[in-house]
Amino acid sequence: MKRVHGGNIREIKEKYNLKKIIDFSSNINFLGFSTKGFQAVKDGLNEIQFYPDSDCKYLKEELANYHHIDPRNIILGNGSVELIYLISKVLGSSKTLIPSPTFIEYELAVLAAKGKPQFVRLLEKDHFQLNKKEVLRGLDEVQALFLNNPNNPTGILYPKQDLLKIIQAAKKKKVFVIIDEAFMDFVEDEDRFSLLPQATRLSNLFVIRSFTKFFAIPGLRLGYAVGSQRLIKMLVKFQEPWTVNSLAQKAGVFSLKDNKYIQKTREFIKKERNFLFNKLSKIKGIKPFPPAANFIFIKLMSANAEDLKAKLVKQGIIIRNCSSFRFLNNKYIRVAIKKHKDNLYLLKFLNKYLDQ
Amino acid sequence: MKRVHGGNIREIKEKYNLKKIIDFSSNINFLGFSTKGFQAVKDGLNEIQFYPDSDCKYLKEELANYHHIDPRNIILGNGSVELIYLISKVLGSSKTLIPSPTFIEYELAVLAAKGKPQFVRLLEKDHFQLNKKEVLRGLDEVQALFLNNPNNPTGILYPKQDLLKIIQAAKKKKVFVIIDEAFMDFVEDEDRFSLLPQATRLSNLFVIRSFTKFFAIPGLRLGYAVGSQRLIKMLVKFQEPWTVNSLAQKAGVFSLKDNKYIQKTREFIKKERNFLFNKLSKIKGIKPFPPAANFIFIKLMSANAEDLKAKLVKQGIIIRNCSSFRFLNNKYIRVAIKKHKDNLYLLKFLNKYLDQ
Repeated sequence: MKRVHGGNIREIKEKYNLKKIIDFSSNINFLGFSTKGFQAVKDGLNEIQFYPDSDCKYLKEELANYHHIDPRNIILGNGSVELIYLISKVLGSSKTLIPSPTFIEYELAVLAAKGKPQFVRLLEKDHFQLNKKEVLRGLDEVQALFLNNPNNPTGILYPKQDLLKIIQAAKKKKVFVIIDEAFMDFVEDEDRFSLLPQATRLSNLFVIRSFTKFFAIPGLRLGYAVGSQRLIKMLVKFQEPWTVNSLAQKAGVFSLKDNKYIQKTREFIKKERNFLFNKLSKIKGIKPFPPAANFIFIKLMSANAEDLKAKLVKQGIIIRNCSSFRFLNNKYIRVAIKKHKDNLYLLKFLNKYLDQ
Repeated sequence: MKRVHGGNIREIKEKYNLKKIIDFSSNINFLGFSTKGFQAVKDGLNEIQFYPDSDCKYLKEELANYHHIDPRNIILGNGSVELIYLISKVLGSSKTLIPSPTFIEYELAVLAAKGKPQFVRLLEKDHFQLNKKEVLRGLDEVQALFLNNPNNPTGILYPKQDLLKIIQAAKKKKVFVIIDEAFMDFVEDEDRFSLLPQATRLSNLFVIRSFTKFFAIPGLRLGYAVGSQRLIKMLVKFQEPWTVNSLAQKAGVFSLKDNKYIQKTREFIKKERNFLFNKLSKIKGIKPFPPAANFIFIKLMSANAEDLKAKLVKQGIIIRNCSSFRFLNNKYIRVAIKKHKDNLYLLKFLNKYLDQ
């Protein structure tokens, strides 16, 4: 599988001579970053002349406070991608089960660690839910399991009870479970679904989280993982020093303090998610899947993702063609949930090109 | 060997109730960062809401221009440490020769890659120069060689001709050579010593450089490596995406454009290096080694590094006790070259405590 991520806006603008582009291919909080976080970065710019705190002391304490856990259960990373690769490296050349389609980096991280990725196929007939039986059977063959919850690109949320059963079975089989909750902050009633509190107690579970999506600071690179203190120590031992830059640490601390922004994001996302999903459901020729996060996965009944993408780009709209995801083809696209005006603009052209 | 790096200023300030601390343990350009680089970061802060360019296109072009090489010979990293670890990972479980004392991360990177570090001891009787014979003999036993030039903590610069002979011999023995030139920008007549141009042509050489020391942006994390296009491609294949944050890329591009700052740094460092070395040479009880970079390595004839450090910290001066470096003991310290006033302050207390 090749690494294909969001589009290069600058190149596309130049190529099509566009003034404005709305990037529905990028799943970032449409409200942008927290102004408190931004201000802290601005005020702390002088810090770039000092080494960052390798231990991320203040940020760990702030996160511990935010999640009601102990700072010793947390490790910070240069984006969650660093931690995906670090965990894979520490697990070594393991066979790893990856229910797919999903985020490509799990597979690439396993390969980079000379491990062997194995796949359980998420099926449309199961509404892209985990097939528990298949996963449990798959555990016999592997040493690790990588999950994305809610899953990118399908937007599907896995029930906590199912996951707990899988983790329990995995423990008996000495299988390590890594759950990437990069989009969990967008989920309504997050606490009912997140396994972050469990990760501090269970001996075979890591939960990965990110500041990239919800807090909208992909450019600064900031992610973290939660696990038992024993597991966290093991990771820290293998981690390079100073991977988290000073400004990312500042942004993290003060974004977490920005309750108003966090609340507003949740409300706006919920409202626009419902609006966009309902409107998309009414367009003939497509089938949107119920979204749990801040993006919507869509099946094209007769159109072709590449053709549709090409038509939309001329209108300044970028969507994600999902054919680069394992087990998907050019019948699937993904769109981020944006502000109301942008969502209306997308709907206008989807209606125009698809509702025939 | 344990990882011991510079001191934590904040903790020390609180512990000793100090108003000001001059940190001679940290080898950063005492002029601070480039104002052009800083301004670019400030102006570009909005970029944190977008993913960084994984390819670092503009920065690569700027570096290529700066060094008169092809952008395809460059790979960027989240600090040079990322590249030290990445190269070690790609070389795999190799035996690696590391002339020591030197920067601890080479050894730790080799160990993290499940390789075996081996050591050639740099000797005081050789003025801590490379013993070419010993190194050449050592090449028979290993698959890689890590060098720091000028070397930290000794400040010694290795002659280009010696290094070229070693690289040539290494090639015949299928040994890979990695030269970390993190402090090369401070060297007078840098072009006579740097192997960066050679790295684009030779098939078994990587040269690593850093923005941390000369450009004084350790908090942003920015380093790079230069090698043949074939080698660079190999590294890129194993590199995680988005490791270099957007602001580091901005700072890099515009710091390189700041000719005045670069010129001024070179002049000031040269002047203060000569001043401090001459004054240190006159203090009885210590022996400073001729410095090539922006720090001075000092042997204590009778004092003890820990005691001296404890005395100085009460005056608000932090020095580096070198006893954590392999093959060194508590008879060695390292001090950074700072601005004139600070250097005078250091000299005052070294004279007071040592010149007896």
